[in-house]
Amino acid sequence: MDAVTRIERALAAALALAEGPGCPPRLAQAMQHAVFPRGARVRPRLCLAVAGACGDDAPALSEAAAAAIELLHCASLVHDDLPCFDDAATRRGRPSVHRAHGEPLAVLAGDALIVLAFQILARAAPAAPARLAPLLLTIGDSVGVPRGIVAGQGWESEPRCDLAEYQREKTGSLFAAATAAGAAAAGADAATWRRLGDRLGEAYQVADDIRDAIEDEAAMGKPAGQDAAHARPSAVLELGLSGAIAHLEDLAAEAVAAIPPCPGGGELRAVILSETRRLLPRKLDVSAA
Amino acid sequence: MDAVTRIERALAAALALAEGPGCPPRLAQAMQHAVFPRGARVRPRLCLAVAGACGDDAPALSEAAAAAIELLHCASLVHDDLPCFDDAATRRGRPSVHRAHGEPLAVLAGDALIVLAFQILARAAPAAPARLAPLLLTIGDSVGVPRGIVAGQGWESEPRCDLAEYQREKTGSLFAAATAAGAAAAGADAATWRRLGDRLGEAYQVADDIRDAIEDEAAMGKPAGQDAAHARPSAVLELGLSGAIAHLEDLAAEAVAAIPPCPGGGELRAVILSETRRLLPRKLDVSAA
Repeated sequence: MDAVTRIERALAAALALAEGPGCPPRLAQAMQHAVFPRGARVRPRLCLAVAGACGDDAPALSEAAAAAIELLHCASLVHDDLPCFDDAATRRGRPSVHRAHGEPLAVLAGDALIVLAFQILARAAPAAPARLAPLLLTIGDSVGVPRGIVAGQGWESEPRCDLAEYQREKTGSLFAAATAAGAAAAGADAATWRRLGDRLGEAYQVADDIRDAIEDEAAMGKPAGQDAAHARPSAVLELGLSGAIAHLEDLAAEAVAAIPPCPGGGELRAVILSETRRLLPRKLDVSAA
Repeated sequence: MDAVTRIERALAAALALAEGPGCPPRLAQAMQHAVFPRGARVRPRLCLAVAGACGDDAPALSEAAAAAIELLHCASLVHDDLPCFDDAATRRGRPSVHRAHGEPLAVLAGDALIVLAFQILARAAPAAPARLAPLLLTIGDSVGVPRGIVAGQGWESEPRCDLAEYQREKTGSLFAAATAAGAAAAGADAATWRRLGDRLGEAYQVADDIRDAIEDEAAMGKPAGQDAAHARPSAVLELGLSGAIAHLEDLAAEAVAAIPPCPGGGELRAVILSETRRLLPRKLDVSAA
């Protein structure tokens, strides 16, 4: 079964659990809206790719880890879109969750998705019980504080903010969780796999800054020009467009160099190269010409 | 060491972890505001009381469970107070988190506290590794969907709502988590301990409805009359004041009868009786006359 099928099946099973008897129907709809139809699923695909490179001998656990990471990502998008943050009207080409379902259900859908991530990890634990604690630590520390995506978002409320720290926490941390959790789910040493995710996360954030600066809303599926509009930290605002592109290329090279020795290293290297090539907007991708 | 000291120490350790290098200072302040100074700590005291009655042979784990439950309770208060829900100006006699720190940091503080609960459970796992998964399931299912406190809050966005279901999810579920998690942390069967917490949670919710109806803001430390103002489900609105009081007394009796056989059952029974007596507002407590 290919990775995308495994991920969608795991996410559907998670949402089915959430929608069991007792769940308010409108909250269930808001959660569905947040998770389906699918986005790029970049982080869970990365998680399964790393698990595969490490042998993936407990696939129920690696699938739960991949789905948990995507649920946490979706939760962060729902909360980031709220009126008190970006006040985004659209996401993935559709109304944002709070525009479609109201602000109370958007707050609750985000909360429920965060908890659901941990519920599904606990349910998958019998596949390899001793791996649950390191997996939880890897994912929890990458989402919460002091260094997870919630901390990263918190820097937007500070008078001063270091761009590298902000991006490492807000985006890099969940990419680092994806690679480290993929390794942990397969019984490998999570710590040695963080750097790959960290570099990919920074590359992804720089690419997002570039798209925000040069693309329009139709191409992005969400409002463009938000960094400048909200005076937010951005690689393009800091380095200029060509500087940001050069930085992105350096990060992609560092990512590939950071793959630890593992049984499936060659295949993983090919996946990483293909993924990083897709990050640049088409109008800038010289290799696509 | 008494229960309150153990709880405050565990919560302080959790917040110290959260405030490590990399945490935005204002987010750390908002989290502190949400957790300290202490409220009644009803749920974590209940958790430790049950753990004690079951032998409490892994105190690091029962303390983590108690602290996790309180962090999740504090997170739910912060989010429930937001402008899109109760828009509460005060909580525990002080400004609510969003009034003191702004709405973005209130959303993020709630998110961070939810994740922190799971981070501290994972860190305490070495005390009794095989108990982590059941503990996580017990707590996660009681907080999220389909039957946890987030689901309970979600019923406020539905056109129709069953009062008993609403209260069981919104309040009872975290009380049931407190008793079941206390048992799970001590290696006992969590499931047999849920009914005690469930009855206590419903009693607590009914007592809250009674206080909301008859007390003023100064006595409650938060705005009074909110149920009627927001047309929310309430035992007083449904049963009348005397009906609600009779219901509360029935629930307290059912709670005491629900204590499973355990080494410290006698002491636990005394604690439960003392706690439930404190639930009624003083002006209604005939035994205090």
